[in-house]
Amino acid sequence: MSTSFSFEIKSHDERARAGIFHTPHGDLLTPLFAPVGTQASVKSVTPAQLEELNAGLILANTYHLYLRPGDEVIAQLGGLHTFMHWDRPILTDSGGFQVFSLADTRKIDPDGVTFKSHIDGSTHRITPEKSIAIQENLGADIIMAFDECGSPYDLIKNEAALERTHAWAERCVKAKSRSDQALFGIIQGGIYPELRQRSAEYLSSLDLPGYAIGGLSVGETKKETLSILELVDTLLPEEKPRYLMGVGSPEDLVTGVQRGVDIFDCVLPTRLARHHAAITRTGRLNIANARYSSEKSPIDENCSCYTCRYFSRAYIRHLVLAKEILGATLLTIHNLNTLLSLMSDIRQAIMNGRFDQFAADFLKHWENPS
Amino acid sequence: MSTSFSFEIKSHDERARAGIFHTPHGDLLTPLFAPVGTQASVKSVTPAQLEELNAGLILANTYHLYLRPGDEVIAQLGGLHTFMHWDRPILTDSGGFQVFSLADTRKIDPDGVTFKSHIDGSTHRITPEKSIAIQENLGADIIMAFDECGSPYDLIKNEAALERTHAWAERCVKAKSRSDQALFGIIQGGIYPELRQRSAEYLSSLDLPGYAIGGLSVGETKKETLSILELVDTLLPEEKPRYLMGVGSPEDLVTGVQRGVDIFDCVLPTRLARHHAAITRTGRLNIANARYSSEKSPIDENCSCYTCRYFSRAYIRHLVLAKEILGATLLTIHNLNTLLSLMSDIRQAIMNGRFDQFAADFLKHWENPS
Repeated sequence: MSTSFSFEIKSHDERARAGIFHTPHGDLLTPLFAPVGTQASVKSVTPAQLEELNAGLILANTYHLYLRPGDEVIAQLGGLHTFMHWDRPILTDSGGFQVFSLADTRKIDPDGVTFKSHIDGSTHRITPEKSIAIQENLGADIIMAFDECGSPYDLIKNEAALERTHAWAERCVKAKSRSDQALFGIIQGGIYPELRQRSAEYLSSLDLPGYAIGGLSVGETKKETLSILELVDTLLPEEKPRYLMGVGSPEDLVTGVQRGVDIFDCVLPTRLARHHAAITRTGRLNIANARYSSEKSPIDENCSCYTCRYFSRAYIRHLVLAKEILGATLLTIHNLNTLLSLMSDIRQAIMNGRFDQFAADFLKHWENPS
Repeated sequence: MSTSFSFEIKSHDERARAGIFHTPHGDLLTPLFAPVGTQASVKSVTPAQLEELNAGLILANTYHLYLRPGDEVIAQLGGLHTFMHWDRPILTDSGGFQVFSLADTRKIDPDGVTFKSHIDGSTHRITPEKSIAIQENLGADIIMAFDECGSPYDLIKNEAALERTHAWAERCVKAKSRSDQALFGIIQGGIYPELRQRSAEYLSSLDLPGYAIGGLSVGETKKETLSILELVDTLLPEEKPRYLMGVGSPEDLVTGVQRGVDIFDCVLPTRLARHHAAITRTGRLNIANARYSSEKSPIDENCSCYTCRYFSRAYIRHLVLAKEILGATLLTIHNLNTLLSLMSDIRQAIMNGRFDQFAADFLKHWENPS
């Protein structure tokens, strides 16, 4: 692990942890939620608005940026921080998940993956070494080992994917050359405890600066997710940050923190915003609903975001029906604030040794959106 | 004229004027450019971003807001200022221009216009009295008399439209009941000097708090526009603000101010932003052009807007090609800043008695976009 990074755990409350992850672009207070900026933009908001929301870490997607505008262009322009004007920490994924979920006609072999671009059909190849080279060009603070995410219920495929993921992780470690980037390994293994255990143990042996839990929230039940998290929690080194990939409903944040997770990311708040849905501490509301047509109150009386300070439900509904871009922007600001302020409250509760109560209260009021 | 309004001319430079228009929502420094918020939102930006741009007056469209969400809903929610969270001055047009340009199967009679909504085909009727009632519900600071905009080259139709516009203006004056709104009359008459003269003289006789020049930039040549402006300039009362409707290219702002115009509005900067075009002091650039793919420099080295302070042409091009909303937002911020800062520099030049030189320099460097 590079000396630019260190993780300090400031407080425990049962399995939940409050920490500080020191990075070359500043300190991250954990547990945290990272908004997603797939194409080097967190959709519908400016970096200034993200700063006002106190976002710390943001995520960008290697697969998308490799294809467009190209990692070499971004390197030439000074790297992702300069390119997108975000001088707080950035995390890039490895490209693996997107190659397997978005690209056309992919072909996996032991050395890497060949696929066609979803943008123009051109043929590309990503190997572990290539993934690291791209991520070094992008220059995020946290980078991910190139992995293969199996489908959750296929034991045979998961086992094969796991072997590849482990071999690839080792090649990523060898390929990595920048000391100002922390390489996280990704634990795979679907819903199979024995595979998850093997993965956690193998990757722990590589002594990486952090570990991600991949392949969850991709079709398995909540109960299965939680039991995998509980298992992995007991196997990973205590002193390293743990990152649960692609998870981000308020309920999942609370139950994830209860099981030792420090970092989350998800497109949910930004994507829901573009589909008229507002996330609150108790559930969701569809702002396009006619019942809001003359409602003076904000989305959430208890929310202190720009949207809730100044705009009524009626106005936001009007913007959405009139297809005004501002509707997506105001909903994005609100949804991100809901998750970011929830994480900040969770951290405070852990520091004060009352997270257990906080989580119980939260889950009691949470209405699972249909 | 209500006591809430007054117009002070602080300085003249030839025909150009620098003034202050006092309104219930604060002072407007003229000459000024008003961004357009057709549906109660200046497209792609937040009110906070507009404030940061030092926008003073903004315009909203009566026709659109009457149809959706409805002027009564807006009144119930506290009026347009509260609804859209803009506590600086607002101007609403009369709905006339949109009824004639957007609505389906309209039918004009001496009393008003019957038309079908472009949104859902429902039938509506706007009379001068109705236009004022809607604008009183909306509650803008400056409201417009209901008018008919003829096609510029049809003398017979223009004459008939002019007669109606005059009769309707008188009815608007009678219908108006709020003292915190200033009603402007609209001079029509196409390209015909004798009609423009008749219109300017008739409306001047109503002693309104301000006058708009309508029916320009709707198909006639620049030369015809300028000669009409020169004529009207000599006929309108000196001490009242003049508003040239729907005009807003940088060149038109400069040549308009040279001919005594105080207020402009136009969708150009916001609309071009959504079509990848950046406006600068010397012309336009299409940011989607491949030549910008790795350009580190901002859109305009001399611009101090948020976009030009922090983002490269390459990044904005990437956003545009990747269809990220942020592309439209950053271009809108830049385009509005170009026009707003141009107006502020024009005003300063008038105050310093060097506007003539400023205008000559500006026009020398201006490249008319094809």
